[in-house]
Amino acid sequence: MEKYRTEEDALGPVQIPIDAPWGPQTERSRQNFKIGPKMPYAVITALLNIKKAAAQANTQLQVLDTDKAQLIIKTVDYLLREDSKADFPLVVYQTGSGTQTNMNVNEVIVHVAKQIDPQQSLHPNDDVNHSQSSNDTFPTAMQIAAYESLQKLYPVLEHLIASFQAKQTDYQAVVKIGRTHLQDATPLTFGQEVSGWVSSLQHDLDALKQVQITLLELPIGGTAVGTGLNTPEHFDQTVVAALTDLYQVPFKAAPNKFQGLTSHSPLVIVHGTLKALAADLLKIGNDIRFLASGPRAGYDEINIPANEPGSSIMPGKVNPTQIEALTMVVARVMGNDTTIGFAASQGNFELNVYKPVLIATFLESVTLLTESIASVDTKLVQGITVNQKRMTELVDRSLMTVTALSPHIGYEKSAQIAQKAQRDGSSLRTAALAAGFVTAAQFDTWVDPLAMTNSQPKK
Amino acid sequence: MEKYRTEEDALGPVQIPIDAPWGPQTERSRQNFKIGPKMPYAVITALLNIKKAAAQANTQLQVLDTDKAQLIIKTVDYLLREDSKADFPLVVYQTGSGTQTNMNVNEVIVHVAKQIDPQQSLHPNDDVNHSQSSNDTFPTAMQIAAYESLQKLYPVLEHLIASFQAKQTDYQAVVKIGRTHLQDATPLTFGQEVSGWVSSLQHDLDALKQVQITLLELPIGGTAVGTGLNTPEHFDQTVVAALTDLYQVPFKAAPNKFQGLTSHSPLVIVHGTLKALAADLLKIGNDIRFLASGPRAGYDEINIPANEPGSSIMPGKVNPTQIEALTMVVARVMGNDTTIGFAASQGNFELNVYKPVLIATFLESVTLLTESIASVDTKLVQGITVNQKRMTELVDRSLMTVTALSPHIGYEKSAQIAQKAQRDGSSLRTAALAAGFVTAAQFDTWVDPLAMTNSQPKK
Amino acid sequence: MEKYRTEEDALGPVQIPIDAPWGPQTERSRQNFKIGPKMPYAVITALLNIKKAAAQANTQLQVLDTDKAQLIIKTVDYLLREDSKADFPLVVYQTGSGTQTNMNVNEVIVHVAKQIDPQQSLHPNDDVNHSQSSNDTFPTAMQIAAYESLQKLYPVLEHLIASFQAKQTDYQAVVKIGRTHLQDATPLTFGQEVSGWVSSLQHDLDALKQVQITLLELPIGGTAVGTGLNTPEHFDQTVVAALTDLYQVPFKAAPNKFQGLTSHSPLVIVHGTLKALAADLLKIGNDIRFLASGPRAGYDEINIPANEPGSSIMPGKVNPTQIEALTMVVARVMGNDTTIGFAASQGNFELNVYKPVLIATFLESVTLLTESIASVDTKLVQGITVNQKRMTELVDRSLMTVTALSPHIGYEKSAQIAQKAQRDGSSLRTAALAAGFVTAAQFDTWVDPLAMTNSQPKK
Amino acid sequence: MEKYRTEEDALGPVQIPIDAPWGPQTERSRQNFKIGPKMPYAVITALLNIKKAAAQANTQLQVLDTDKAQLIIKTVDYLLREDSKADFPLVVYQTGSGTQTNMNVNEVIVHVAKQIDPQQSLHPNDDVNHSQSSNDTFPTAMQIAAYESLQKLYPVLEHLIASFQAKQTDYQAVVKIGRTHLQDATPLTFGQEVSGWVSSLQHDLDALKQVQITLLELPIGGTAVGTGLNTPEHFDQTVVAALTDLYQVPFKAAPNKFQGLTSHSPLVIVHGTLKALAADLLKIGNDIRFLASGPRAGYDEINIPANEPGSSIMPGKVNPTQIEALTMVVARVMGNDTTIGFAASQGNFELNVYKPVLIATFLESVTLLTESIASVDTKLVQGITVNQKRMTELVDRSLMTVTALSPHIGYEKSAQIAQKAQRDGSSLRTAALAAGFVTAAQFDTWVDPLAMTNSQPKK
Repeated sequence: MEKYRTEEDALGPVQIPIDAPWGPQTERSRQNFKIGPKMPYAVITALLNIKKAAAQANTQLQVLDTDKAQLIIKTVDYLLREDSKADFPLVVYQTGSGTQTNMNVNEVIVHVAKQIDPQQSLHPNDDVNHSQSSNDTFPTAMQIAAYESLQKLYPVLEHLIASFQAKQTDYQAVVKIGRTHLQDATPLTFGQEVSGWVSSLQHDLDALKQVQITLLELPIGGTAVGTGLNTPEHFDQTVVAALTDLYQVPFKAAPNKFQGLTSHSPLVIVHGTLKALAADLLKIGNDIRFLASGPRAGYDEINIPANEPGSSIMPGKVNPTQIEALTMVVARVMGNDTTIGFAASQGNFELNVYKPVLIATFLESVTLLTESIASVDTKLVQGITVNQKRMTELVDRSLMTVTALSPHIGYEKSAQIAQKAQRDGSSLRTAALAAGFVTAAQFDTWVDPLAMTNSQPKK
Repeated sequence: MEKYRTEEDALGPVQIPIDAPWGPQTERSRQNFKIGPKMPYAVITALLNIKKAAAQANTQLQVLDTDKAQLIIKTVDYLLREDSKADFPLVVYQTGSGTQTNMNVNEVIVHVAKQIDPQQSLHPNDDVNHSQSSNDTFPTAMQIAAYESLQKLYPVLEHLIASFQAKQTDYQAVVKIGRTHLQDATPLTFGQEVSGWVSSLQHDLDALKQVQITLLELPIGGTAVGTGLNTPEHFDQTVVAALTDLYQVPFKAAPNKFQGLTSHSPLVIVHGTLKALAADLLKIGNDIRFLASGPRAGYDEINIPANEPGSSIMPGKVNPTQIEALTMVVARVMGNDTTIGFAASQGNFELNVYKPVLIATFLESVTLLTESIASVDTKLVQGITVNQKRMTELVDRSLMTVTALSPHIGYEKSAQIAQKAQRDGSSLRTAALAAGFVTAAQFDTWVDPLAMTNSQPKK
Repeated sequence: MEKYRTEEDALGPVQIPIDAPWGPQTERSRQNFKIGPKMPYAVITALLNIKKAAAQANTQLQVLDTDKAQLIIKTVDYLLREDSKADFPLVVYQTGSGTQTNMNVNEVIVHVAKQIDPQQSLHPNDDVNHSQSSNDTFPTAMQIAAYESLQKLYPVLEHLIASFQAKQTDYQAVVKIGRTHLQDATPLTFGQEVSGWVSSLQHDLDALKQVQITLLELPIGGTAVGTGLNTPEHFDQTVVAALTDLYQVPFKAAPNKFQGLTSHSPLVIVHGTLKALAADLLKIGNDIRFLASGPRAGYDEINIPANEPGSSIMPGKVNPTQIEALTMVVARVMGNDTTIGFAASQGNFELNVYKPVLIATFLESVTLLTESIASVDTKLVQGITVNQKRMTELVDRSLMTVTALSPHIGYEKSAQIAQKAQRDGSSLRTAALAAGFVTAAQFDTWVDPLAMTNSQPKK
Repeated sequence: MEKYRTEEDALGPVQIPIDAPWGPQTERSRQNFKIGPKMPYAVITALLNIKKAAAQANTQLQVLDTDKAQLIIKTVDYLLREDSKADFPLVVYQTGSGTQTNMNVNEVIVHVAKQIDPQQSLHPNDDVNHSQSSNDTFPTAMQIAAYESLQKLYPVLEHLIASFQAKQTDYQAVVKIGRTHLQDATPLTFGQEVSGWVSSLQHDLDALKQVQITLLELPIGGTAVGTGLNTPEHFDQTVVAALTDLYQVPFKAAPNKFQGLTSHSPLVIVHGTLKALAADLLKIGNDIRFLASGPRAGYDEINIPANEPGSSIMPGKVNPTQIEALTMVVARVMGNDTTIGFAASQGNFELNVYKPVLIATFLESVTLLTESIASVDTKLVQGITVNQKRMTELVDRSLMTVTALSPHIGYEKSAQIAQKAQRDGSSLRTAALAAGFVTAAQFDTWVDPLAMTNSQPKK
């Protein structure tokens, strides 16, 4: 039988599990909202750091005792060091301002501080939340958590790009058939094909790094409605300087706090760029799995690692499972982008109250992308090899190389050769020689698929 | 230099092009909203029919002179008969209740009625709009227009299904390789593959016909806020009976008018089903274009008609352009579904004011689907033929038929044969005979791909 | 230091944690996919029931020993009874066919069966998976899990409707101002306003119950590509009969299995209807929070329960936090609908490999809706009361009731009264008496807002 | 009876309307695709400019006769000068590469050139399309059209911002109640509230200008598959220099052409930012219409212009119709974003074949936003005025200003005053004086709402 202690807030007494490190506001929310998953821990850690920075700013601006500030800082450091996830039991689907999560953090700091220094006493609102409101700390935490999550995505994305670049180099002179409208087209090298993937991902990465600066303007200092009521002068710059120091990230105090509480364009814009990345990943993933299709009845141009048995009896059936996980993540990111645009549009007056779902959805996208990119990179992409024989065979069988004959024997005769090959089901070379328009030596000199790719330095 | 006449409304005088058959309300909207495309004409015709039905109901319930009612009916018939699109110049992006389009219809009827019978005089509000409000006529028109548009989709969808069914019959015994995860799998017949497409489309069609009944409940009779203020008793049933008669469609008077003015679930639900159809069309379209990929370096299992030159020099490059148009329509329908869900959610109190964008978006989806399905059916699907030789070759090359040996020589030896074939790049038959586990006769008896498909009646 | 045992599959030896009740296929997936959350347990339980039904069918059709079948059934019952979540560690973002989750279930049954009866030995593929393939069991499990989840949503939705119906009855004669375009309109009763909410939700519920039947057609029996290879005759009907018996739900064997493996229209259609419900919930939620806005500077027509302090110092600030949680769920459902449409469209050939994300996303929507509807119902809706004084005051202040004078004193004089009231900022009654067009007694008789609502039986 | 001429292409003879300025490729597409609206003219003009720039580059690089190049240039100038929309009859839903639209442009140039100079003869492929392919010209035209469309959006958005800034200045000291969670909160000035709108829009505008540079990299020079087959050396830089000159926009030759043909991230990213703008516009639009709600039963804090009669009898009912048009546009942009993300993800191998729907959808969003922003700005925003009396009254009635007493009489007594006011339904001032904790003079000195807003320079 669970035991309780009783604490009081403005609405009256609340029963709290006896060992819980939180207070009445947290407990009310825990009871009132039994909906969905817990608030992402990245939001909690951002709030903890904000509490630390605010304590520093408050004492520096002489509105909080140095002792109290020191105790807050010490407590935050303790909570960040230990695994304190269980101390923050509230869910995403709570009040839309994230108020109870902000209070959860305030209350836990007070509770844990008492264990660290039983002599001192902190108040969750008057001390820990000093100069703050949920309405400015929570969106500040959202932007910090979003920014920090991206920094974890970048290295795995860069690593994937590097893995593709290695393939690009390895196969820079391996000619393969091009495909447009899924129909045979003029040749290119596999290195060139991969270079398109590299370039797409690099563009998306560059775009992310460019748009992420929109996350750096923090609305902290706006308090309840954006006017900064109950903050000492220069609080915003001071606390932002402290955060910049803590994170080693060039945050800025938002010049207009009203915008920061009501508009979540930064998340919409950055997530829109994540959607662009997702779209490119789907395209690349589809290319890979189609190129690896087979082994006997597919394109079969490349091989991918066999990570699990694709068939218990038939060898060579290698399912592109890593691609499948990645593309399911893409489907999710597409939907998350709808959620984020929707939620961002629904603010009213001085507050948007869709904050928890906005940040949880954003972080889900980044985390899923990070995990699936890392997975597909190490378990699939790095292991890609080409079936050069097959690639050559498909190029040789193709009729599109006929264009290389045209400058030598004219359009008319070239077309005749191609038509003959198509009619006979023969290779272009066979048809050309049979037609008598070129000699074998001429054909082999003129029809040089590698030269057609423009991939090699001009001789 | 354009000439004007002056008319007056509650806000004062309005200059109207001298020959325009509309009045001040229309003209104000025409001047105030120069945004986007015109209101779909299907909404106008539905409103015209509503005016006709309302005139019938009003005179039947003795709240409108029979002469006036007859004139309204005569005028509506005239407008429906002639091409009167130019009389309705207002755009989708106007007031969110569609009020000005309702008034446009009222004003044009008054104007044209005067030409038909100069002796009589109708008033747009007191006569044509009698017992009505934009707030109930417009959503009624939306549902009628939506319902009617579906009736045009069904025959083209049924025709596409029939075209596929013809292929299913033609190729019921043509064996081909199955593909799961894009990897070779056990065989099926092309008729079976097509039967999956037929079944998918038939399920979607059935679902559409099932969910469309949600459109039949009409909110007419609710007037401005749903209470039916200013309507005679039984007006709703009477006007709905008239509409049922006009359209030969079993409409019903919505038992709750408040819902009809504020909730557009019927459109959301039906469009969600259109999205399911779109998703299946994309899958089928992708299957077709991949199966037709080649001619030399693709799956090349089927042929599609060459509707335009795919390459000026190379024969056999047949771009699946009809599929491309269809799948671009699918992309649009996916987005339209987001728009419709969004708009439907944004009502307040007694009215949802996203009505024009809801119906315009819905009708765009239905029209695009209707036109692209008709196009792909007649210009591509009906012309599909199979490359039976290629299909057979791929099945013969495949290793998945090894499962048919297992009951006879055991799992172990079967796997050894498959491994040998994979290692040697040989066919399963070659490997099996080389291994000495089966005779040629046995192999040919036991490995019977058609039998593996379960497509034929058991002997 | 964790200890391992070694097991083997077609790809070679695998190290498995020594106490793990799963085999090599599960372990490979556990290692290869460290992406996102675990597969919803509802899918696992559906698969367990499928294994039970398949064992029954297999023994009935004499392709599996009765002893083995009995052991499978006993083991499944044990696993369903106990909390066996930890036995199923695989994640959503794995192979897109859900193969490893199907194998996880097969392997755990084998492992646990050995503990239940060490004398017998089951094989995960040959016995537990007999007559099945991941490709048919997984989509079958998806549809069962989806259907079952809806049955949990219905009672909470019905209860919410009942709660609103109670308010509808309580306030059937309490007149309030109507609002269209957010502007004052003619009056209605609060009971009528709530009746619109009731009707909207009831329509959505009815639509859900209507469209859910699309989930009942199960593709089990199609095995790997839909042909039913390796199943005894009548397996599909037999196993579906067993499932019908187990669940007491009228499942049907899908007449076309190819469709069942490749098309997920049933999920798209049902989720589209969930989106319609979500849209209505947003509208209703917004109505409630705006009607409760204030306490001093808002509409302030209704009161909602104070579940947590809205302000530490100011009484009467009651934040509509339950509505906020609900509307955040709506934002999520909107995005999930995009994900589901996207994923459903991406199938190829004989398989759609977005199955896990489809079902996980679908179940997330249903679960979040169920939890948030239950929460908002019990913690907010049931506690709604009206501020009748405020409602009356707003109706009295309104000018829209002027329409009731028109039949008595004519349009012209009525408009003059309204204009005067507007100019003076006075009530309509004051302006009417001042204008001298009516007596106080006449005004009070003629301007009867309740009568204007048509809510009461005609006298 | 329409008369025809006959022309031939690789597939055979084609009947073309005798006066049509296009050739067989255009005519085939016109007959084959009767689906949806015409290709946006902005794409045509971009293609025309590309033809001009290509002619310049080709002659400069000595692969095209100067005479021919001059004639192409002259013809393009003529077509751009005249209204030549009717010459380009093809629709959006055609081949997904836009090939036929590229050929339409080539063919029309040839045809019109013959009228300009009957002595010379141009070939659509060999001359007008020289060094080009639809596969590189069409995406180049897409990015140019997208970029150019944005330049038309910026001035109207800047003008809207300026209109809001004027209001911000006018009302910088007019205090009003703040609202969070729709509940009364601490005061701010209306100027501050508007400053949040200004800041949101300015952020979105800045973001657009930042991300638009992603559109400047043009894939021209890649020809059919990205290798640049059949282009002279340096063609890409030369043609891009010509385009830069023509448009006075710093375009760049894409370093990787494979990416440019297959990835449409630039459109996804920019449209994601348009979605952020749309989300902010919805929020601002909702704020305006709720603040203007009434006239008697709403917030009624601001007045908006009466552009059309809101009610035929009741004055003062001013429907926010411009906002309604704007917010319907937002709903459309939300859906368009789904379409664009979807379409961008569906490329295969060397080509994405969703190009026409991508650009048409993008341009629709920009055009609708441009038109609706211009409309709402001139017809509504500029005419906003405040009801200062009402704003003051709501602040005075509010209880949130009690926080200003706390520093003087303590939290406890302040809370008592607020509770008393709430209980009595009285103003805070009345309750404070009745409680006897402050004098009237003290109250009026201490409770200074304007000072609470931090909007004025500190004295």
